Amino acid sequence: MRLRLTPRETSFYDMFATAADNLVTGSKLLTELLGADVSARPEIAERMRAAEHAGDNATHAILSQLNSSFITPFDREDIYTLASQLDDVMDYMDEAVDLVVLYQLDELPAQIADQIEVLVRAAELTAEVMPRLRTMKDLTEYWIEVNRLENQADQVHRKLLAHLFSGKYDALTVLKLKGIVDALEEAADSFEHVANTIETIAVKES
Amino acid sequence: MRLRLTPRETSFYDMFATAADNLVTGSKLLTELLGADVSARPEIAERMRAAEHAGDNATHAILSQLNSSFITPFDREDIYTLASQLDDVMDYMDEAVDLVVLYQLDELPAQIADQIEVLVRAAELTAEVMPRLRTMKDLTEYWIEVNRLENQADQVHRKLLAHLFSGKYDALTVLKLKGIVDALEEAADSFEHVANTIETIAVKES
Amino acid sequence: MRLRLTPRETSFYDMFATAADNLVTGSKLLTELLGADVSARPEIAERMRAAEHAGDNATHAILSQLNSSFITPFDREDIYTLASQLDDVMDYMDEAVDLVVLYQLDELPAQIADQIEVLVRAAELTAEVMPRLRTMKDLTEYWIEVNRLENQADQVHRKLLAHLFSGKYDALTVLKLKGIVDALEEAADSFEHVANTIETIAVKES
Repeated sequence: MRLRLTPRETSFYDMFATAADNLVTGSKLLTELLGADVSARPEIAERMRAAEHAGDNATHAILSQLNSSFITPFDREDIYTLASQLDDVMDYMDEAVDLVVLYQLDELPAQIADQIEVLVRAAELTAEVMPRLRTMKDLTEYWIEVNRLENQADQVHRKLLAHLFSGKYDALTVLKLKGIVDALEEAADSFEHVANTIETIAVKES
Repeated sequence: MRLRLTPRETSFYDMFATAADNLVTGSKLLTELLGADVSARPEIAERMRAAEHAGDNATHAILSQLNSSFITPFDREDIYTLASQLDDVMDYMDEAVDLVVLYQLDELPAQIADQIEVLVRAAELTAEVMPRLRTMKDLTEYWIEVNRLENQADQVHRKLLAHLFSGKYDALTVLKLKGIVDALEEAADSFEHVANTIETIAVKES
Repeated sequence: MRLRLTPRETSFYDMFATAADNLVTGSKLLTELLGADVSARPEIAERMRAAEHAGDNATHAILSQLNSSFITPFDREDIYTLASQLDDVMDYMDEAVDLVVLYQLDELPAQIADQIEVLVRAAELTAEVMPRLRTMKDLTEYWIEVNRLENQADQVHRKLLAHLFSGKYDALTVLKLKGIVDALEEAADSFEHVANTIETIAVKES
């Protein structure tokens, strides 16, 4: 039998992996929502709410563990920041879903699919990187790719704003749609914040 | 004569109590504003501004004390975070009052009363909990209740958004009212942030 | 030959000075944009984007240095916070420029000049104060003046909101202009956050 010298540290990685997997679930629900009939939306929103609760639980577990751990695998502030930023991503995705259901918009602009595609890819990359925090190896590609995705999200967001103000929509509809595309843009930004924190952690360990 | 071994620590509790009492004052001014004639609003806004300045002073006193204290009753970052979050609540309540006066809206949607009621209750709970930071006892009910209130605030906010976009208001009025109800929602969120920080402090001390 | 005991510390001051000089460049591009023909705007936005990239590089250099330094001239969190807040100012100025170009507004409200004037003055003060971080001398006037400027910016912002909702503009134009003046207001707020952090650093060192 091998002795596990730092039994407690292990679970942080597992908990971060859980939180990131949950973001993959959330981002895929966004894709599903976009393709669904108006009548099918509330049920998808229900599942999004469940994913958001699961995310809250993961965050809460990380913070409880953090507060009761004497030794942590990396800096306490970085653990706290990473957990909060993963939580932010989910909150913004959940907000977008909420608003789609609340505003009962018949049709959403097609380019929202491009925003969501970026989020799905960023979520997958984030979930894939979590196990690599153990060894701190092969992280560079992840940062570069998430930063590239965030730039892409910015451009899609700008195009969507131009589209919203193109004259096609009345002011109330613009206001509703802007709430949704802004929430999705915030989710993309939050993925970049996660990547920046992981970079910070990696630089300290190197 | 009893020796006071940690004379400095005491005042943090007092200063946090002052900051929280000030939020009770602010939330009650919101109630007063809602019931007042348009002509009476500027005077209420004046008193809100005074409360906001008192809040700024309390925050400043806490941070000055923090920077010059060698020993603090709990973690420095937590003191800093708690002071900033109490300040955020006041800033959002002040912003809501400012916008009500600025936009000269004759009538406000009735459900705003429900938003404000939640804020008054959250402010009272926050003021009541401050003295208990000394002993760290009986905090659980406070967290549970503030989190419940924040969920309630979320639901009221969603109902208000649905009401704003129901077709009753023109786009400019929606834009004005949305500014106000969003500021009140941010105030409710900030009360939850305060509660989360107090939970963090309590877990560390336990 | 004199021994340099703390060779590494020096560069933080230089890097903060670079970041702050860059804000002066950005704020002057805002002035230029306001006076330019619609056709000349994209080229100014290009230069703004270059300034924003230079800012990103300065921030990145500070954070890399921070993560690899064993000794820092002041608290690590304060260096991190200061770098992030300088970055925030640039992001908000860049956002304002982006929106002006994107929305292709023929005419901007004259009072936006007052907002930008405040930003230029705050940027200059911030650039002037950076070299004084070395000695921590003569900082008081800077805080007082930046706080005064932020109050002035608040008042200009409120007047602009009242102007936007005066009935002169249709709802879509209000929505566009509000995006721009809100971004400029956030830039002014961020300058105040910078000043507060510098005050915190100075109090600790005194």
